[in-house]
Amino acid sequence: MIEGHGDDWYNYEGCIKTNFSSNIGNKVDLGALKEHLNGRMGDLLSVYPEPQPSTLEACLATRWHLRKEEVCVTNGATEAIYLAAKAFVGAKKTAILQPTFSEYADACRLHGHSIVSLYQLPKQGRLPADIQMLWLCNPNNPTGKVLDKAELAELVQRNPHICFVIDQSYEDFTLCPLFSPAEAVGMPNVLLLHSITKRYAVPGLRLGYLTGNAELLRRIRVCRMPWSVNALAIEAGLFLTRNSRDFPFDVQACLAQAQQLRQQLQALGGLEVWDTDTHFMLVRLRTGYASALKDFLMREHGLLIRDASNFEGLDRSFFRLASQSPEENKQLVQAISQWLKKEETWSIGG
Amino acid sequence: MIEGHGDDWYNYEGCIKTNFSSNIGNKVDLGALKEHLNGRMGDLLSVYPEPQPSTLEACLATRWHLRKEEVCVTNGATEAIYLAAKAFVGAKKTAILQPTFSEYADACRLHGHSIVSLYQLPKQGRLPADIQMLWLCNPNNPTGKVLDKAELAELVQRNPHICFVIDQSYEDFTLCPLFSPAEAVGMPNVLLLHSITKRYAVPGLRLGYLTGNAELLRRIRVCRMPWSVNALAIEAGLFLTRNSRDFPFDVQACLAQAQQLRQQLQALGGLEVWDTDTHFMLVRLRTGYASALKDFLMREHGLLIRDASNFEGLDRSFFRLASQSPEENKQLVQAISQWLKKEETWSIGG
Repeated sequence: MIEGHGDDWYNYEGCIKTNFSSNIGNKVDLGALKEHLNGRMGDLLSVYPEPQPSTLEACLATRWHLRKEEVCVTNGATEAIYLAAKAFVGAKKTAILQPTFSEYADACRLHGHSIVSLYQLPKQGRLPADIQMLWLCNPNNPTGKVLDKAELAELVQRNPHICFVIDQSYEDFTLCPLFSPAEAVGMPNVLLLHSITKRYAVPGLRLGYLTGNAELLRRIRVCRMPWSVNALAIEAGLFLTRNSRDFPFDVQACLAQAQQLRQQLQALGGLEVWDTDTHFMLVRLRTGYASALKDFLMREHGLLIRDASNFEGLDRSFFRLASQSPEENKQLVQAISQWLKKEETWSIGG
Repeated sequence: MIEGHGDDWYNYEGCIKTNFSSNIGNKVDLGALKEHLNGRMGDLLSVYPEPQPSTLEACLATRWHLRKEEVCVTNGATEAIYLAAKAFVGAKKTAILQPTFSEYADACRLHGHSIVSLYQLPKQGRLPADIQMLWLCNPNNPTGKVLDKAELAELVQRNPHICFVIDQSYEDFTLCPLFSPAEAVGMPNVLLLHSITKRYAVPGLRLGYLTGNAELLRRIRVCRMPWSVNALAIEAGLFLTRNSRDFPFDVQACLAQAQQLRQQLQALGGLEVWDTDTHFMLVRLRTGYASALKDFLMREHGLLIRDASNFEGLDRSFFRLASQSPEENKQLVQAISQWLKKEETWSIGG
């Protein structure tokens, strides 16, 4: 792995008032989950988990009306990424739609793929015949944009020689149409990545899964090491999936707050706030560096943002924000406004 | 991964009275750990773990008087096995001392190694020049035997072209001398694998680590995916390492009980009980199949043993037992005795 992931809270432990840096945007009351895990802690610690998390795979298959061969549970979506790269080890040409989550390129590089960056997809037509895999994130991290579903479906269909790895980790945080697991299973060249972590705001657990055609998933499964998901994560996954109604999430309210944050930031001037289809957004400083703003916000206000300069195709002026509560968002807007004014004064004065 | 691991309790859920099938041999009072995890559950669920578990690595380094670059924490010893195989991807010739844990061969095969089986090590002298890695388990699973330390040290020194991967997952369950982490760090061609799971009887968590030369570990670390160890496992590892004195383990009593079990089984006749240096042992039926004995013990007595027929070099007459409490061991001996008598009768009758 390379350095420079988003949520580097551990470098600021004890100093963070609000964390806008990770893409966990929902406040979920985890009381019932905590109680359940506490009650079963003895067993969960002292017995080996299933070598392959088949019970949770069957449970998720029921949830999505799939066969269990069409679900593969992983140690976070991250393991799904590494397994997909591993299953196509030494791919002659792997395309990644940039800018995006750096882990796709890291995983492909580790497994000897030859990587090409794409900055947009053709609206229709065929991609080059020598491309074997294409990775994209939908909604995309860090831009928050969702691709047009019909266009993507056409591209998938017209390019049966390419395995499309579509990371839908943020699927619960948009109202734009996306591929359903059942639709993905119907396409022999699509792997969908899902995150249980993000929907239920439990990133400490590491829990994700893949859905896709059984044939394609078989290729993934042979690469998976046994016991990669621990007993606590499996149990939490079962509990959350079986009781998902007890953990409601109001995506409309969440997105409305994010749009409000976007408008407030835009109104400050000095910032270019990119359009988003989800609860996080990419922002560009018209002058100055995101790293300086990040330092200021942390030092003066205990607010953590994501310096986005290490995403491929972005420069030192970019940062990413995940919308939090209206009050927290307001504090952030005020703090950024303060910095922008300081910068302006300094710029005039200097 | 292939099918057929040892502790297949999940196939018999609710029916097992005593589990002799896994190599977890110690009864540890986990009350303090459970309380600690319960108290911190909120944070542990809702915050990302460190991408690399550096805090736990530093804690273990202190424990073993190493530099933190000389420790690499993994998602169970299993991830350590897969990372070591990955770091030497496509090794021309990898030797495995058999019979042993099947995961070494699985991991090497997955990473394109060409594998040769060894059934004993030369007492001294050089191994073939084309061997790049040598895997051994010490104490060995399933035999429970420990290699002579001085002989092993000489072999390591005389074969600097070979990376010795030495799985010491059962190191706390023997009184025979083994390499210490500090000794391993002094040898540029030794990777030691350790299991936190086994010492503290917490296999549900998945927690292991590697110790070795910083240069060698760097090669491992670049293959590791981020966030492979979840927040609960990291926290448990920190708590157990910092408070290890509160989780005492009487290895002498444990081994004495195992020897008693060994003698009682030997006295039954009809069994060949192999000598062991740890708390588990390999047993051979003079007639009949281990799978039939396993079925009988489970069905009639709720006792689970490990059919060892799928270990390379062993046949259908072998099973493995991990010693439990004296009372539980006694029940097992009686149950096996009952089966042996039945078999004898059947054999005479038939």
